[in-house]
Amino acid sequence: MPTISKKGQLMPESPIRKLVPYAEEARKHGKHIYHLNIGQPDIKTPEIALNAVKENTVEILSYSRSEGSETYRKKLAAYYDYHNIKVSHKDIVVTTGASEAIAFIFGSIMDVDDEVIICEPFYANYIAFATAASVKVVPIVSKMEDNFALPEIEEFEKLITPRTKAIMICNPGNPTGCLYSKEEIKQLADIVKRHDLFLISDEVYREFTYDGEPHYSILELEGLDEHTIMIDSVSKRYSMCGARVGCLVTRNETIRHTVLKFAQARLSPPTYAQIASEAALDTPQSYFEEVKNKYINRRDTLIEALKKIDGVKVSLPKGAFYCIAELPVKNADHFAQWILESFDIDNETVMVAPASGFYSSQDIGKNQIRIAYVLNRRSLVKAVNIIKEALKVYKD
Amino acid sequence: MPTISKKGQLMPESPIRKLVPYAEEARKHGKHIYHLNIGQPDIKTPEIALNAVKENTVEILSYSRSEGSETYRKKLAAYYDYHNIKVSHKDIVVTTGASEAIAFIFGSIMDVDDEVIICEPFYANYIAFATAASVKVVPIVSKMEDNFALPEIEEFEKLITPRTKAIMICNPGNPTGCLYSKEEIKQLADIVKRHDLFLISDEVYREFTYDGEPHYSILELEGLDEHTIMIDSVSKRYSMCGARVGCLVTRNETIRHTVLKFAQARLSPPTYAQIASEAALDTPQSYFEEVKNKYINRRDTLIEALKKIDGVKVSLPKGAFYCIAELPVKNADHFAQWILESFDIDNETVMVAPASGFYSSQDIGKNQIRIAYVLNRRSLVKAVNIIKEALKVYKD
Repeated sequence: MPTISKKGQLMPESPIRKLVPYAEEARKHGKHIYHLNIGQPDIKTPEIALNAVKENTVEILSYSRSEGSETYRKKLAAYYDYHNIKVSHKDIVVTTGASEAIAFIFGSIMDVDDEVIICEPFYANYIAFATAASVKVVPIVSKMEDNFALPEIEEFEKLITPRTKAIMICNPGNPTGCLYSKEEIKQLADIVKRHDLFLISDEVYREFTYDGEPHYSILELEGLDEHTIMIDSVSKRYSMCGARVGCLVTRNETIRHTVLKFAQARLSPPTYAQIASEAALDTPQSYFEEVKNKYINRRDTLIEALKKIDGVKVSLPKGAFYCIAELPVKNADHFAQWILESFDIDNETVMVAPASGFYSSQDIGKNQIRIAYVLNRRSLVKAVNIIKEALKVYKD
Repeated sequence: MPTISKKGQLMPESPIRKLVPYAEEARKHGKHIYHLNIGQPDIKTPEIALNAVKENTVEILSYSRSEGSETYRKKLAAYYDYHNIKVSHKDIVVTTGASEAIAFIFGSIMDVDDEVIICEPFYANYIAFATAASVKVVPIVSKMEDNFALPEIEEFEKLITPRTKAIMICNPGNPTGCLYSKEEIKQLADIVKRHDLFLISDEVYREFTYDGEPHYSILELEGLDEHTIMIDSVSKRYSMCGARVGCLVTRNETIRHTVLKFAQARLSPPTYAQIASEAALDTPQSYFEEVKNKYINRRDTLIEALKKIDGVKVSLPKGAFYCIAELPVKNADHFAQWILESFDIDNETVMVAPASGFYSSQDIGKNQIRIAYVLNRRSLVKAVNIIKEALKVYKD
């Protein structure tokens, strides 16, 4: 029998999905599961986007342009302008989800064994895309006690080697809820300029910042046009995860030209989803205010409830809709599986994402979980109560 | 300024699209262009698929399953059953176009510098996906004088090295229109079994076979379950290129498990497009009969017209909707560009794909072009006439 590749063996199992078989088993036994494990919001997609698809007049569902439809990119450029990001539609390449943007960027700037420095805990799939591209993620630890702030710049300096090609951030951050200040972004600008690196920023949660703190995009940096590449997506912004439309934005023409070759190979991003995404740009600002208030309330409810549990530590997320919680257990992977298999209250149980998959360092985060606050407050309270009661009886 | 990757430099420009700037220039000068360069059919998408999207009741456009929706995969399995391919829905992983299926397969079975043998001329983007995965395409030449039949098995044997992981075919073939017989497929089965290789078959043109010759899928082979991986797509079958829905089908569980890790990293295939694809499976057989008759008429018209041109050679396509034509020129790349820039009849000109991009051997196919017969017969006749008249005045 022919064998699979080493790369295929090394590809990580998604930490968000690896508990799925246990969840399915729990459901078979009639249990209701509160899903805190995946960033799939329960928020309705804007009507304006849904209607545009229902009212589409496509007769031949043709390829679109590899870089995405021109009308969509022009409206996107106007959206960025509103957010103080001055770009032309020509700076934008539309991708099939932010996922594809990551793959195209890794391919365009890194060769086998090249390195990208990323603060951990980080979005778990970054590791998967790095593995697929045969490149290396070099982690730099951000800590709960610092509210997952940007690590000291000297710590970055220590990790830079001749193979380092980029520093990558997620801002606001999944899974930590960190929100980097303008000051922190400028420190990163300084270091990438000094070492001639790329700065990649995943900004898919731009709208979701709390407590009045603004979001500062890497594309607002001056004099960094050749270095900065921003990743974006409609998935969370408009609760359109199933569209699979993202983009990458850079003023670096060589990068765009190179990315476009990857984009041409896969022909085009999905047409219906581009129709929805273009229409979604007309979503009224009131939608975001409403959604943001919802998330703030949920966050406050969640954090307050978690803090009341003996031995649980949690930081205050300043953006996105996740938090990392430290549990009084040795192995959160095992706890997360056990709770699905063996614990319920009135036939209700909880699914969380063990945080170990969000770290590439081997010994960190073993007692942490990621919680996505994408459910209503009543469900969050019930779900946290299940965790609380479970911790009382759980034996490591 | 930080530099792009060697891989990014090596990524080929799409041969189908690299003439686009010259076409745009021609359009600016008011010229009408007959597009023979790209496999974008002018055939209408089945109403049943278009309507399913218009009538969709999605309220939250959520992620679907990474392997594709279960209802879609179950209906797909029934479609394959109709085509004498006995598979379960569990053997299917839905992908974002056949493109993504290729990327997942290359990642799952090949490491850096591993090799896949492919008959050339081949679908140009195979090279792009190989470059992205840092693996090597080893070409084996199929010849116009043999009607692009499968090369002798001894020729394959000569190319097999310890790094060879797979033989890949496209059947029916883009860009040649070749259709491999059951006998030819069995020869491939024999060699992959003997050398413990994978056999990958791109069968996206399954329905488009002419002259009464049947299509024989690699999944019909017995005793090859661990070796065979089939690639498919809705793009050409239902004229739904913009959907971006494909799949890969294999009975090899280890491969599916590995592919699924790549699939989980990108979360899910596009939701609206899956709705369209599922509905498209109810397209009546009469649609295919009609479309097939159209393509047969177009093929016959095209080949007849091409044969009448002095110095032009062409083989008879037995499937798909492309042909390779040899022109009495030294450099078809230059001819294709020149015709856009400098030749027209009554303000009409032609865009073709130079075949050089479909070869990875350096010295072959320089005088060939690929023609996609995706236009109506009247347009095909006019387009070929333009080529004919252009050849009279063109100087190499």
